[in-house]
Amino acid sequence: MEYKYLDNIKSPKDLKELSCSQLKIYAAELRDYIVETVMRQGGHLASNLGAIELTLALHYVFDAPQDKLLFDVGHQTYAHKIITGRKKDFDLLRTNDGVCGFPNAKESEYDAFTMGHSSTSLSVGLGIARARDIKSDNYRVVSVIGDGAFTGGMAFEALNDIGASGAKMIIVLNDNEMSISKNVGAISNYFTKLRLSKRYSKFKSRVKRGIASLPFFGDKIMRCAEITKNSLKAVMQNKIMFEQMGIKYFGPFDGHDLHSLIEIFSSVKDKNEPILIHVATHKGYGYPDAEKNPDKFHGVAPKGEKSCFPYSEIVGKQLSDFADSDNRIVAITAAMADGTGLSEFALRHKERYFDVGIAEQHAVTMAAGLAKQGLKPYFAVYSSFLQRGYDQIVHDVCLNSLPVTFLIDRAGVVGPDGVTHQGVLDISYLCMIPNITVCTPKDGNELGEMLKWSLDFNAPLAIRYPKGYIKDYGNAASIALGKWEVIKKGTNKILLCAGNRALDAACEITDENVEIVNVRFIKPLDTEYLDSINKAENTVITFEDNVIKGGFGESVLSYFNSVGKRADVTILGHKDEYIENLDSAEVLNKIGFSKKNIENLLYKNS
Amino acid sequence: MEYKYLDNIKSPKDLKELSCSQLKIYAAELRDYIVETVMRQGGHLASNLGAIELTLALHYVFDAPQDKLLFDVGHQTYAHKIITGRKKDFDLLRTNDGVCGFPNAKESEYDAFTMGHSSTSLSVGLGIARARDIKSDNYRVVSVIGDGAFTGGMAFEALNDIGASGAKMIIVLNDNEMSISKNVGAISNYFTKLRLSKRYSKFKSRVKRGIASLPFFGDKIMRCAEITKNSLKAVMQNKIMFEQMGIKYFGPFDGHDLHSLIEIFSSVKDKNEPILIHVATHKGYGYPDAEKNPDKFHGVAPKGEKSCFPYSEIVGKQLSDFADSDNRIVAITAAMADGTGLSEFALRHKERYFDVGIAEQHAVTMAAGLAKQGLKPYFAVYSSFLQRGYDQIVHDVCLNSLPVTFLIDRAGVVGPDGVTHQGVLDISYLCMIPNITVCTPKDGNELGEMLKWSLDFNAPLAIRYPKGYIKDYGNAASIALGKWEVIKKGTNKILLCAGNRALDAACEITDENVEIVNVRFIKPLDTEYLDSINKAENTVITFEDNVIKGGFGESVLSYFNSVGKRADVTILGHKDEYIENLDSAEVLNKIGFSKKNIENLLYKNS
Repeated sequence: MEYKYLDNIKSPKDLKELSCSQLKIYAAELRDYIVETVMRQGGHLASNLGAIELTLALHYVFDAPQDKLLFDVGHQTYAHKIITGRKKDFDLLRTNDGVCGFPNAKESEYDAFTMGHSSTSLSVGLGIARARDIKSDNYRVVSVIGDGAFTGGMAFEALNDIGASGAKMIIVLNDNEMSISKNVGAISNYFTKLRLSKRYSKFKSRVKRGIASLPFFGDKIMRCAEITKNSLKAVMQNKIMFEQMGIKYFGPFDGHDLHSLIEIFSSVKDKNEPILIHVATHKGYGYPDAEKNPDKFHGVAPKGEKSCFPYSEIVGKQLSDFADSDNRIVAITAAMADGTGLSEFALRHKERYFDVGIAEQHAVTMAAGLAKQGLKPYFAVYSSFLQRGYDQIVHDVCLNSLPVTFLIDRAGVVGPDGVTHQGVLDISYLCMIPNITVCTPKDGNELGEMLKWSLDFNAPLAIRYPKGYIKDYGNAASIALGKWEVIKKGTNKILLCAGNRALDAACEITDENVEIVNVRFIKPLDTEYLDSINKAENTVITFEDNVIKGGFGESVLSYFNSVGKRADVTILGHKDEYIENLDSAEVLNKIGFSKKNIENLLYKNS
Repeated sequence: MEYKYLDNIKSPKDLKELSCSQLKIYAAELRDYIVETVMRQGGHLASNLGAIELTLALHYVFDAPQDKLLFDVGHQTYAHKIITGRKKDFDLLRTNDGVCGFPNAKESEYDAFTMGHSSTSLSVGLGIARARDIKSDNYRVVSVIGDGAFTGGMAFEALNDIGASGAKMIIVLNDNEMSISKNVGAISNYFTKLRLSKRYSKFKSRVKRGIASLPFFGDKIMRCAEITKNSLKAVMQNKIMFEQMGIKYFGPFDGHDLHSLIEIFSSVKDKNEPILIHVATHKGYGYPDAEKNPDKFHGVAPKGEKSCFPYSEIVGKQLSDFADSDNRIVAITAAMADGTGLSEFALRHKERYFDVGIAEQHAVTMAAGLAKQGLKPYFAVYSSFLQRGYDQIVHDVCLNSLPVTFLIDRAGVVGPDGVTHQGVLDISYLCMIPNITVCTPKDGNELGEMLKWSLDFNAPLAIRYPKGYIKDYGNAASIALGKWEVIKKGTNKILLCAGNRALDAACEITDENVEIVNVRFIKPLDTEYLDSINKAENTVITFEDNVIKGGFGESVLSYFNSVGKRADVTILGHKDEYIENLDSAEVLNKIGFSKKNIENLLYKNS
């Protein structure tokens, strides 16, 4: 396809030269180019296609980078990246030679904040707005947030403060009926009610510009005969809900109507108070496959790669099978049914499956409540997102010592998902908490065994596993609490491997002196095994796909120290820095998960 | 005072034998006895006095422990404890020989869940309700939550799920206009609007029982001439806000009118859907001093002890002084102005002071936004509550490497505040995060120096300090990043002390061979100092009021290991267990912060 504008728009300034009809052509070009690139490189598709007109209108009306545009989560910023001079780097999306998949302040001054988790944009926006006012600066702040991110309690905390503050800022509620999986909960039902009201479209076009003058409890709108009672009620409720918080509400508007969007943004951009603009968009807009199945097209795998990760699949399948005969089993997700593999459980055990929305805090404590009454909840969640429920793990699950199992997916480095999604802290942040047990399987079979073993384990448990695995070690031996597995017997050189990535690297070593251990339990340690390493001349190397600080290796070291043993321990894991590298293999290689490095360590003194 | 019922009510069963007028007498007795005990023992006063009638009505109508009563935060459970057979142990409130200050499942089967942090009761309640339904059990679940706790995003996440679930449970919104300090934010303004509407009292008594039948958008109530437009609107909004979420709303009711409370609870207790009962109470009700100044009487110090902690005072004073000449300084609290010492800042620098409500997540990220634009935010927060903002520290402050300073109060053991408030995880959960610096002062003077030093430190910083300190070490030397202070020069025996409690213990040792070091920086370590300990025969003891796992001592050990040094390191800190002991001195003594233990360690081989 020949592009007319795509290569010529190098900054938002160029954009402002275009007419509305030219903008529409550019929108189509962006759409086409994003689809093509994502199909090749992998990445978020549906969310990005849904936000193209919105992004164009924002850049057309506002003056970034002086004005601060904050995109919540940031999985809808592809158009933003292309518009702001990153077209060329977009070809290599999600690689170290191209742009990353989320806003990153190091990548561009147009990315006002580095982010990738949900529901943060309102808090960041308010902080920026307050700083502006304190310093008597003069720019605008816009936070673009999806309806899914609204289920995150943090967004509500921010709304509460924004409303009370009266600060000048604009919230764009990008209402697309779903965040990652189909959005759940009362807030969603409520937005849906609004959209589904029969005369919605008609009503929508009618109120497009007029709604701004809707009287609070007035009667003007009542005379508008075409409006059904339901749609009126829904809009009124919307308006009431936000305005009673002190946030002026305008909407809903068609989020794909460039002209209207430009008009509404222009009319409110300098209002000196908190404004919420409610726009309705379709995820995947303009790409029929993605429109029909936006969940599937939320995250697209690069060409030639599988889109589904085997650990997640095993979780979904095995848990569902166990649940057939064990009716204590309950599964919980925070808006990640597909990503965590729970979709199958959702189908097979609907009544024992809970998708709580993007609400990890609630998910953890709700699980605690379930467990308190004798059920067996499994909360499947990405490592980096579980951080949101940290206090709840400490204060609700572990203090009450309840048998909640955390199935920690995407533990370890995550490659192209990038710096905000690295799951390299969980070993450390969990192992310090009393009453919890932390384990990690060497492959899918062992994950199955761990799940089986977990059924009768009556205390808090975390099972961590990375995005995928390659090597299969055959049938797994059964699991016993705190017991490790010697994979290959050796003599005085010992490789302690926490997780499959560690083990895969270690197993390249064939030296008969080298003992290779599958560390199934990171906490508690297998002290019987560690005690058996009784010679000072032993060389011990620990491996973990986690930061060194507070991790597995330091647990081993601390144990040796506490019993007065002086082994030579080398700890391999991530350094004390954020991992911006988008190539997992490269990262693991750099921290020493390679045959060459292990050999260097083993034979350094010979 | 001669009590008629206080000693005879030994369980809720006894309570149910009383008539309403007898209950009122019992309420007065409870009030009297709680005031007397709290004035002697210390504890929460205002919140407990405000909830007496509410608690009586709940126990009168519901059948605990079969029915599950969950009290959010739990700082209003004194009456509940006395009613449920713990009168005798209440005399020694907040000591190891009496009851603790929060619900504790180990203490009584009537405490359905152990808790002490805000906004968790709705999630726990929903989990319990769902478990009941899955198991086809038959009991009732009641979550009592204050309006302050409603500002915590977690409560909103739960409401969202509760509304969508349709689960049978009752939420009692105990609306007392403030949680700990004066409650802030839009939600609070909104509740306040309701209460302040001129005809509120008159209206309240009128709708007390009738409100349940308020038509949604009906006109019946319109005819009720006494009702002002404002109060109607407020009630309608309340109703709309909750009912649009799928939660049936009843209220507001007078939370001190036992008869009405019993009536309303009786009428809804078996409704098969989520119900919210909105009751208005006065913190400190019945005790004029506490009613007038509930913030002051939120937490009362035991007789003979100071109610204000010197570290917090220094924070408030110094920050305010610095802010006089440095207009980058901004202070943030999450509903803890008094506890953290920020009240003075609030008075002196109103425009740069933000109380965001019980909303630590938002507080952290809002601070990040402020810092991003060049301001210098200080977030003063208790150690155990900062856990709520963990993901935000990782994802917003540290990833963006912004100069937010966390002033971590109540770090270390907290004595009578109990197990949920122990601040013994922060060294571990912070030190693993890249880009952050963690320090701890030896006394108030040094805290002042650290604050001064922090002004020009341009990265994430945490300063941790305990509830109070006793020993004063005189004028503090100026601070340099990562540099420790040798307090007493010695030879081959080295005591590395992180924080004043550690130092106070170590300084009892006068042996001239013993070197005592004030570890000002927990991260980064003073590696120059550590490298100077160059003999294998050195004895090193590390002290920290934090868990051993992931803490300071393990950092030292790991550093020695990484550079191939084999020092004999003994790590003193908390074990891997929750600390239920309410006597800080006893706990510190048990982990070895004592002259006797240090001598044992130093001279074990001689």
